[in-house]
Amino acid sequence: MKKLKRSGRLVDMTNFLLQHPHELISLGYFTERYESAKSSVSEDLTIIKEIFETQGVGALRTVAGASGGVQYVPKVEKSTAELFVDGLCEKLENKERLLPGGYLYMMDILGRPRTMNEVGKMFASVFADRQIDAIVTVAMKGIPLGYAIGTYLDVPVSIVRRDHRVTEGSTVSINYVSGSSRRIQTMSLARRSLPEGSNVLVVDDFMKAGGTVSGMIELLQEFRANVAGIGVLVEAEGAGERLVDDYVSIARVEEVNEKTKNIRVVPGNFLTKLEKERSR
Amino acid sequence: MKKLKRSGRLVDMTNFLLQHPHELISLGYFTERYESAKSSVSEDLTIIKEIFETQGVGALRTVAGASGGVQYVPKVEKSTAELFVDGLCEKLENKERLLPGGYLYMMDILGRPRTMNEVGKMFASVFADRQIDAIVTVAMKGIPLGYAIGTYLDVPVSIVRRDHRVTEGSTVSINYVSGSSRRIQTMSLARRSLPEGSNVLVVDDFMKAGGTVSGMIELLQEFRANVAGIGVLVEAEGAGERLVDDYVSIARVEEVNEKTKNIRVVPGNFLTKLEKERSR
Repeated sequence: MKKLKRSGRLVDMTNFLLQHPHELISLGYFTERYESAKSSVSEDLTIIKEIFETQGVGALRTVAGASGGVQYVPKVEKSTAELFVDGLCEKLENKERLLPGGYLYMMDILGRPRTMNEVGKMFASVFADRQIDAIVTVAMKGIPLGYAIGTYLDVPVSIVRRDHRVTEGSTVSINYVSGSSRRIQTMSLARRSLPEGSNVLVVDDFMKAGGTVSGMIELLQEFRANVAGIGVLVEAEGAGERLVDDYVSIARVEEVNEKTKNIRVVPGNFLTKLEKERSR
Repeated sequence: MKKLKRSGRLVDMTNFLLQHPHELISLGYFTERYESAKSSVSEDLTIIKEIFETQGVGALRTVAGASGGVQYVPKVEKSTAELFVDGLCEKLENKERLLPGGYLYMMDILGRPRTMNEVGKMFASVFADRQIDAIVTVAMKGIPLGYAIGTYLDVPVSIVRRDHRVTEGSTVSINYVSGSSRRIQTMSLARRSLPEGSNVLVVDDFMKAGGTVSGMIELLQEFRANVAGIGVLVEAEGAGERLVDDYVSIARVEEVNEKTKNIRVVPGNFLTKLEKERSR
């Protein structure tokens, strides 16, 4: 790559850092890439760090020492997150979402990659320091959110299925009781899709009584995984006791009235959790 | 936002453009954002354009006139694409992928958001000028690729399912014949997940005889959609005639020998299609 001036370096480095979240990049990589002095690269990084922080792109952490370097950690601004949460609550309260049985149609939200990426960055902010090795989500509607978070944490995604497919090799299955319908169901995960002992973030789009999530936690025990966190886009008032209590949610459906078609949605605990992570 | 110097503007604009692919952004947006003169912003964009083009980030198109502005179009470099294709072929030839029935395990590839994003950018390059309105893919393994392409084209994703779920509202279903197993199966798409008359890119992870893809095309007729393109990650020699002939593939499985455990994988037609799009 040809020698670049500061202006060119800033554009290229910004792109490079954004494409490599959570990766520790040695200063030597940049000095070689640009044939520039270490002091110039350090100054570039100072400029990028300031903009990333003031514009809510994320943090630029520098690690000192021989094995040191720089690491871009995606972080969402509290004000941006608040706007997003409020917007989502408003969207969810639209009466036209109401489906028979009191279900809410959500694919217009889940179907937008840009929206999913915004949520992905939000969850990646909260779980940035949990040393996550892998995301585990459940087919099919957890998948878009799982990949969006996986992009910002730069970790692989494993998908729990409710059916068996021949193209997965040997699988581990469990039976679990769906929290709201109380029916016994099966879920399975391909043996080779998750290394034993992984530090896992469990993700789903929707949680009511928590049956699916607690099923996933049980299934993960078979992989000797450690559940380092649980993230759901939308939670709803469960019928009776909730099976899972430590989780992060973006929005919370408080009431769905099929007669009046009234839907009441309030912010989930995300903003509180974001504050807590920051003050740790 | 406070007034920024060139160095700060370059970092912020690079980030902003990368987060808004295919969106036409007026120069006025940037001059207001930075309280800077139009001439300064134009110079900034010239610098970014040069780096984006020389570093293979993509094209920066300027549209003149009152409703004009600048648009970032993600584009992959041919050399980067070649490296990726070769790497994928090599990975796919690993004997350990072989599953009973001659299937290949691919979740280690499909499970990596970064890999999916690379492929997503590649497909977004080839289909950049096709005026795509929506991606349509099939649950569950087409979903990661569908969202990755959707991110770079900034379009929503609709998911065809092989089961019925109550949380989708009214659906349109068709029966189709699976090309390789010759069994009759059902697939369905929620009525409200795709506007009528959309210009659609059909995406899947794997195509053998093309039964699933041609089923999707038939299903899309019910939505009066126009199929503007078909993209598959991996194609395989079909048993007999292939049902779909105009598609873009990254890799092609030529042979799977269950006895010798030999797998032979060659590049798909992606690089040829990329050349063709560029010379249009």
